[in-house]
Amino acid sequence: MQLPSALLEQAVSEFSKLPGIGRKTALRLVLHLLKQDTEKVEQFTEAVIRMRKETHLCQRCFNIADQQLCSICSDMHRKQDLICVVENIRDVIAIENTQQFSGTYHVLGGVISPLDGVGPDQLQIDRLLRRTVEEPVAELIFALSPTIQGDTTIYYIQKKLQPTTIRFTTIARGIAFGGELEYADEMTLARSLQHRMPVEQLRM
Amino acid sequence: MQLPSALLEQAVSEFSKLPGIGRKTALRLVLHLLKQDTEKVEQFTEAVIRMRKETHLCQRCFNIADQQLCSICSDMHRKQDLICVVENIRDVIAIENTQQFSGTYHVLGGVISPLDGVGPDQLQIDRLLRRTVEEPVAELIFALSPTIQGDTTIYYIQKKLQPTTIRFTTIARGIAFGGELEYADEMTLARSLQHRMPVEQLRM
Ligand SMILES: [Zn+2]
Ligand SMILES: [Zn+2]
Repeated sequence: MQLPSALLEQAVSEFSKLPGIGRKTALRLVLHLLKQDTEKVEQFTEAVIRMRKETHLCQRCFNIADQQLCSICSDMHRKQDLICVVENIRDVIAIENTQQFSGTYHVLGGVISPLDGVGPDQLQIDRLLRRTVEEPVAELIFALSPTIQGDTTIYYIQKKLQPTTIRFTTIARGIAFGGELEYADEMTLARSLQHRMPVEQLRM
Repeated sequence: MQLPSALLEQAVSEFSKLPGIGRKTALRLVLHLLKQDTEKVEQFTEAVIRMRKETHLCQRCFNIADQQLCSICSDMHRKQDLICVVENIRDVIAIENTQQFSGTYHVLGGVISPLDGVGPDQLQIDRLLRRTVEEPVAELIFALSPTIQGDTTIYYIQKKLQPTTIRFTTIARGIAFGGELEYADEMTLARSLQHRMPVEQLRM
């Protein structure tokens, strides 16, 4: 698809780099922006660039944060000794939307996957281990994708923490093995949290 | 869907304003941008804002242009006396992609639609009439949406130009009545151009 303007072409090409956006869709989005007032387009681009430049990762849980601590870590109504361990920020958002969880989070940044070159050092596992020393932690709920890599990550963390009085649980496997957590509907995810089970049951 | 960051929320809300982008999709796009290097995100936002600020409408045909004249109007290999009249820039792009048309364009900006408050004065009809005086025009090919509003627009322009030696044609109605031009596949659109017919046949 040839476009009659180099500037239009550049904008379409940038939009096409976004996941799931083909050139036809990119063109529709760009032509929509072309019709808007300049201020509206500036509002769009400024929101995007501020989000990228001014957010950072929460110093405690690695969730996205506008301040040093994320809004969840700074909320003193939440159970600070209950930590839900997730892979990424999308999972935090998915679980928050169930409105069934009142603890805090720890975002690992992925799961251990030697084939993809992801070892424990590429993840925020050390920081999680340190949290269990620095904070009074009663329970770790693992809400990782139900895959071999997810299970490996659970075993690794659990082993590193022995001996301990911390309770280890995982969200119930209502989700199909190999499925992706973030695409689970809210009901499935909410039930999985309610019926979380001791990690030992994974091996049964 | 509650988001754990006000800056993230703003970016998602801006993306959600784009046509066909719901909040879930917006979140996926924004989190993708969050993972990119700052320079990549700046490249994205700068392409968008430059496209909005530095493109303008071609002084002659109202197609999108990086200079005073669009790339089509400045191409002296194209038949200058053959003008394809379209509603919008998307239609120019769609017809260009058939590679079947070697004339120039005139972008009306819509069609006459009294119910939507669009009269001839809201469209670039006067500028088209002026072109037929200032330029030697042999033929106007109307490539408007095959709707009552599209036909009304054709009749209006044709009447305004009487008496004249200009030939009036419309692209063949291979497209379903009421259909939208920009969603036609390239083959249908290419054939419609090849088999264009005199406007009189519309009434038969
Ligand atoms: Zn936090
Ligand atoms: Zn032009």
